[in-house]
Amino acid sequence: MKVALDAMGGDTGPDVAVQGALAAVRTLDDIEVILVGPEELLQARLKELSRGDSLALARVSVHPASEVITMHDVPVDAIRKKKDATVVVGFDLVKTGRADAMVSAGNSGATMAAAVKKLGRLPGISRPGIASFFPTVKQPVMIMDIGANVDCRAQHLYQFAVMACSCARLLQQNPQPRLGLLSIGAETGKGNALVKETYPLLQASPLNFIGNVEGRDVYQGDVDVVVCDGFIGNILLKTSEGLADAALQMIRGEILQSWRAKIGYLLMRGALSNFKKKVDYAEYGGAPLLGINGTGIVCHGSSNGNALRNAIAVAANMSRHNINAAIVRHLSEYRVEQENTVS
Amino acid sequence: MKVALDAMGGDTGPDVAVQGALAAVRTLDDIEVILVGPEELLQARLKELSRGDSLALARVSVHPASEVITMHDVPVDAIRKKKDATVVVGFDLVKTGRADAMVSAGNSGATMAAAVKKLGRLPGISRPGIASFFPTVKQPVMIMDIGANVDCRAQHLYQFAVMACSCARLLQQNPQPRLGLLSIGAETGKGNALVKETYPLLQASPLNFIGNVEGRDVYQGDVDVVVCDGFIGNILLKTSEGLADAALQMIRGEILQSWRAKIGYLLMRGALSNFKKKVDYAEYGGAPLLGINGTGIVCHGSSNGNALRNAIAVAANMSRHNINAAIVRHLSEYRVEQENTVS
Repeated sequence: MKVALDAMGGDTGPDVAVQGALAAVRTLDDIEVILVGPEELLQARLKELSRGDSLALARVSVHPASEVITMHDVPVDAIRKKKDATVVVGFDLVKTGRADAMVSAGNSGATMAAAVKKLGRLPGISRPGIASFFPTVKQPVMIMDIGANVDCRAQHLYQFAVMACSCARLLQQNPQPRLGLLSIGAETGKGNALVKETYPLLQASPLNFIGNVEGRDVYQGDVDVVVCDGFIGNILLKTSEGLADAALQMIRGEILQSWRAKIGYLLMRGALSNFKKKVDYAEYGGAPLLGINGTGIVCHGSSNGNALRNAIAVAANMSRHNINAAIVRHLSEYRVEQENTVS
Repeated sequence: MKVALDAMGGDTGPDVAVQGALAAVRTLDDIEVILVGPEELLQARLKELSRGDSLALARVSVHPASEVITMHDVPVDAIRKKKDATVVVGFDLVKTGRADAMVSAGNSGATMAAAVKKLGRLPGISRPGIASFFPTVKQPVMIMDIGANVDCRAQHLYQFAVMACSCARLLQQNPQPRLGLLSIGAETGKGNALVKETYPLLQASPLNFIGNVEGRDVYQGDVDVVVCDGFIGNILLKTSEGLADAALQMIRGEILQSWRAKIGYLLMRGALSNFKKKVDYAEYGGAPLLGINGTGIVCHGSSNGNALRNAIAVAANMSRHNINAAIVRHLSEYRVEQENTVS
């Protein structure tokens, strides 16, 4: 299993990618990593950071790419102009069969645009999207779409549901993932026009649809897959990050006001760091691009080596389980019910 | 200043309303409270809970209403059928000048429907909405709409901005509240179709528009007013509540695994409870209904007496400052710019 890794994608430079590649080959069976980026630089960093570990070095290679797409680039323009960008070259490796999957911690819009340009969409899929795992009180929940499609129709949300459930079945080994539709009340008929149109499509499908779910249900872990349009999904994601940060800042402010609390904090530190680890996106292995004709994962820009290692593991798993074949099969199996409902 | 209080609105029965009324008249100057609900019951509870405090009792009265609208009622139907419901009678007191404002911790849809039915909309306002204060690292931020309007047009968001900024100016004594448009990227041009249409309206207005803000900015306190449609606003509100609860559950779970952490928790308890107080909706005095021709506030169903007391204070303040006159004046002042932009 060969996974291409965008070596210039993250906010913190190529060392993180090199560390992620080394961690992946050292801890995962049957994995090779292809670092995509400036060849000389990457070979030098690889040599230094591996400390001559020849077993690891034998499973990490470098594929040259001279350009980088930044967070400030406009995705579609950048893909067109920078033909030798790491993310474009990486998906070309997948297209030509030289890699099984691609992982990038770069501009997520550009990663999606490069994936669609190089690999195309799966048959029957109108809009590929990005799924992401959110931590909950119980097991993680998968949310789709988290930002690729800001204005959606019911048919798009229906397809997100099929894709995310197919992915959750195989990745989480859950034969009947509970599917929820993000809305503002659990009762049928609550929600905006898009939710009201999507509800009957999901209800008529063979998916394990449990109905509308609210923002507060997401974190209780009583649902496995939640669908929403990419505008709301992205706001949900960033609000959650923002609230977690703000809460920790406020608690820290309170702790600094008292010696008692400072000592308490020292004693509780282990528990708090376990909590932080549980909610850290780095543990969840990035966000799969679903609906493209190949395997791609986009990671948080501030991913560390461990986060990239986990994303490489998920990418390899997705490719091994042939999630795309499952998506196409489910989509065509469900088409009858779907057409019956729409007509 | 007379404030009507729905005595049967909250999840926990009339005692909370009686406690809120007593707390209000004891701690706020120039306030009388009219409890709206079953007369005998309320008089009895008032007698007992006031412990014969005749000074307080002189400023709390009861106005009879025999019906109650529950959280399970469909707002518009319930308003039509239950003509003697507490929330309907309460807004009738405002309409007929027997009260200056109305506060309810009941069904927010029914509260808005009763307000619109009894009081009507302010001139020029297409859609009244609900504004709410969210805690941040700095001062609270006002978000509008948090659930009254699930499908909006740009013009509605523009009006939410004018209303919320007028309210923030007077309530927070902030002459130039910083206004943000909730989106998925700070750059102009990022967002869904609604955001892209709303952006130029806000930019052309005399409001202090600082551009798009993301979910994570909301909690940093670098913006005073944030506008969004009611579907997203409600999801933001409930996600925030849900995430805060889930985080505390997860932290508690970690603490219970170690004695060290348990002792640490005991020492930190004061700091954590200060934090909890800071983020507690009860401190923020409920959510103003803006755009109705009168003053109304809706509170969280699980509000305690202190939360209701704070909401009564905000309601009286809104009425005193004549926020509605400011809204109507600003709306007509801005109409020229607005029409120039639309045409």
